[in-house]
Amino acid sequence: MRQTQLFTKTQKTSPKGEESKNAQLLIRAGFIHKEMAGVYTYLPLGLRVFNKIAQIIREEMNAIGGQELFMTTLQNPEIWKQSGRWVEEGTDSRSGLPWFKTKLASGGEIGIANTHEEALTNILRQHVSSYKDLPVYAYQFQNKFRNELRVKSGIMRTREFVMKDLYSFNKTEEEFRVFYEECAKAYLRIFTRLGIGDKTFRTFASGGAFSKFSDEFQTLCEAGEDTIYLDREKKFAVNDEVYTDEVLADLGLKKDTLEKVKSIEVGNIFPLGTKYSDALGLKYRDERGEEKPVVMGSYGIGLGRSLGTVVEVNADEKGMVWPVSIAPFQVHLIELPGAESEAPKMYEQLRGQGVEVLYNDRKDMSAGEKFMEADLIGIPWRAVVSAKTLQNDSVEIKRRDANAAMELVKVGNLAEYFSL
Amino acid sequence: MRQTQLFTKTQKTSPKGEESKNAQLLIRAGFIHKEMAGVYTYLPLGLRVFNKIAQIIREEMNAIGGQELFMTTLQNPEIWKQSGRWVEEGTDSRSGLPWFKTKLASGGEIGIANTHEEALTNILRQHVSSYKDLPVYAYQFQNKFRNELRVKSGIMRTREFVMKDLYSFNKTEEEFRVFYEECAKAYLRIFTRLGIGDKTFRTFASGGAFSKFSDEFQTLCEAGEDTIYLDREKKFAVNDEVYTDEVLADLGLKKDTLEKVKSIEVGNIFPLGTKYSDALGLKYRDERGEEKPVVMGSYGIGLGRSLGTVVEVNADEKGMVWPVSIAPFQVHLIELPGAESEAPKMYEQLRGQGVEVLYNDRKDMSAGEKFMEADLIGIPWRAVVSAKTLQNDSVEIKRRDANAAMELVKVGNLAEYFSL
Repeated sequence: MRQTQLFTKTQKTSPKGEESKNAQLLIRAGFIHKEMAGVYTYLPLGLRVFNKIAQIIREEMNAIGGQELFMTTLQNPEIWKQSGRWVEEGTDSRSGLPWFKTKLASGGEIGIANTHEEALTNILRQHVSSYKDLPVYAYQFQNKFRNELRVKSGIMRTREFVMKDLYSFNKTEEEFRVFYEECAKAYLRIFTRLGIGDKTFRTFASGGAFSKFSDEFQTLCEAGEDTIYLDREKKFAVNDEVYTDEVLADLGLKKDTLEKVKSIEVGNIFPLGTKYSDALGLKYRDERGEEKPVVMGSYGIGLGRSLGTVVEVNADEKGMVWPVSIAPFQVHLIELPGAESEAPKMYEQLRGQGVEVLYNDRKDMSAGEKFMEADLIGIPWRAVVSAKTLQNDSVEIKRRDANAAMELVKVGNLAEYFSL
Repeated sequence: MRQTQLFTKTQKTSPKGEESKNAQLLIRAGFIHKEMAGVYTYLPLGLRVFNKIAQIIREEMNAIGGQELFMTTLQNPEIWKQSGRWVEEGTDSRSGLPWFKTKLASGGEIGIANTHEEALTNILRQHVSSYKDLPVYAYQFQNKFRNELRVKSGIMRTREFVMKDLYSFNKTEEEFRVFYEECAKAYLRIFTRLGIGDKTFRTFASGGAFSKFSDEFQTLCEAGEDTIYLDREKKFAVNDEVYTDEVLADLGLKKDTLEKVKSIEVGNIFPLGTKYSDALGLKYRDERGEEKPVVMGSYGIGLGRSLGTVVEVNADEKGMVWPVSIAPFQVHLIELPGAESEAPKMYEQLRGQGVEVLYNDRKDMSAGEKFMEADLIGIPWRAVVSAKTLQNDSVEIKRRDANAAMELVKVGNLAEYFSL
């Protein structure tokens, strides 16, 4: 894309009222816009990253048998009353789910979805009756709304956010456990593909009524809201909330091998047992004709939080540093004076071979401004073409994520260099 | 996809309380689920169609210079008060925008978006200041919420729906008009690609403060809510609401060449003048340094309504009939007794060459049930393989959308037949 066409502009200074690094950088670079506290629009550059994250998650969920659907924001209170999660008084998260509610013009109060266990369980009552209809693994990418009393941490804890939420429906606890472990592995593959695999650890957390533990995926980060105790050798951790002698004994962990660190919860997987299938009457008949409740689990990843975590973990003092897998573009082509006729040709050539190029064709920015902006935006390869580089029939290439020296690549070799 | 894996099941009878053909068929075929009046979930088959419609629209919007972003549902009342569209009393659509509203746990009322003129105009105040920053054409696919007093027509008039909404920002009325006409052409291309091009006509409708007319795109359909007067020869129409002698004279139309027909509004494009840029203070400096307001337009297509219209217009007494361009799958492969070893091979072969196949591998359905279900779901090609067809080393192929006879195609020629 030509930057003269891109409608967003970068800012040289940090926006007021944003304390988190992720929101400061994303706003300055024109990736997001703050609508109000905890509510952010994704601008074109941000949406490109967002969609790549979604696609990686989609591929991994499909690979373990997930079927994608798209549920609704407006929620009928009746199904939530059945599970006891329709909070009559107050919307504070301390009193249950952090509901936003609204009123129909035709009368009656309805909910604005913050999760979808009840909704999907209710849908499946129409499609599941026999053991032959199970298992079901269904997921969506859908906006969630949480009426948080306070928001902070930029796009990591917001009132409106897109979540990938998968729900599993199994015949037995054993069948459920097999899928649960498969999904845990898929999550680690996802975070590896997002470029934060080496800093992300499966973490034991509290379970709830049907299971001793749930599992979180925590990414080490000083800006994180969570505290975990990490065993670096065993590559798993224990959340602060279940850090007791009893739990450590259960897990075979010793206090002196655990490191207390700050982290960001980038995903969680949660055994639900038969809590919602019992409440909503989702049953199936087994091979013998006996009626049994369906065993459920839920599996979430917040897309904005993942995106924000990548920013927090990878950014340096100059700006953001995107992994190739989710970068808004792969190459940032920077035209300097003297390259006005060559740069457009390179842009078309690279695009023609499928390389995603952001092309700074602006005439009203100095070389220094273009370099500073490129560092802020954080595209993996910067390719500078100027009168000087063209004297050597070359383009000057620099990786954003390395301290490697610049490299002069012959114009004729550019196609091969970027045959990614 | 194997139907034994697909979690949705079809229903033989119409759901209660649904009068519209589109919702009846889509629910019976497992494409959608009704959450409450005017609120529908897209199940996997429905979401596949939905995503294909979105992709066609995206391609056409990108082709005319559109930049995709993703705005928010939660809306700050302050920006809507500036334009006078924050309705203090009542949420009825007759009193302005059909707002749903909600309350923050931290205090204060906020809106749930039903359109985004104000939101995007406000965003652009941070990115547009000079004539060099214009034009801007920005669009999104985003949920809209409208607090309709009554809903009907299935997924064609709902309280929650995804809309493609594009907004144009131009320097001058002349520049705006050129884009407006380009977008009108893009809309006709979109409806042609959705398979309703021959029934869809540009229709003059009332304009508002800044323009005599806006333009609707109306698809002829008996089930439609709108009445238009169509000149079949000139290929455009006049909406009932502006059907006056004065307007007809303006447009050079004569009453006796106009046909009164029912139709569905599948899209609209609307000149906004400087209404919102004036209200929110979106100005630019022209080449002479003079400050001027930005000239705007808005361009909407409801995805659910487009999908529902295709169902209404194409369905026959047996079920739905999808155009290839947006069908959930291209081929419905039906395995009958005697083909248990051959059918899976064909399925893998076709998938391997990139054909989207729904494979009915269920053993608990009769041939008759499978045929009836295939007609209901409406995939373009039905391919039946049985002991009988295999005696001729063949597959029996039938088009869903034609009365053409069945065709026997040799198993060895299947790849070539479906090299679509």
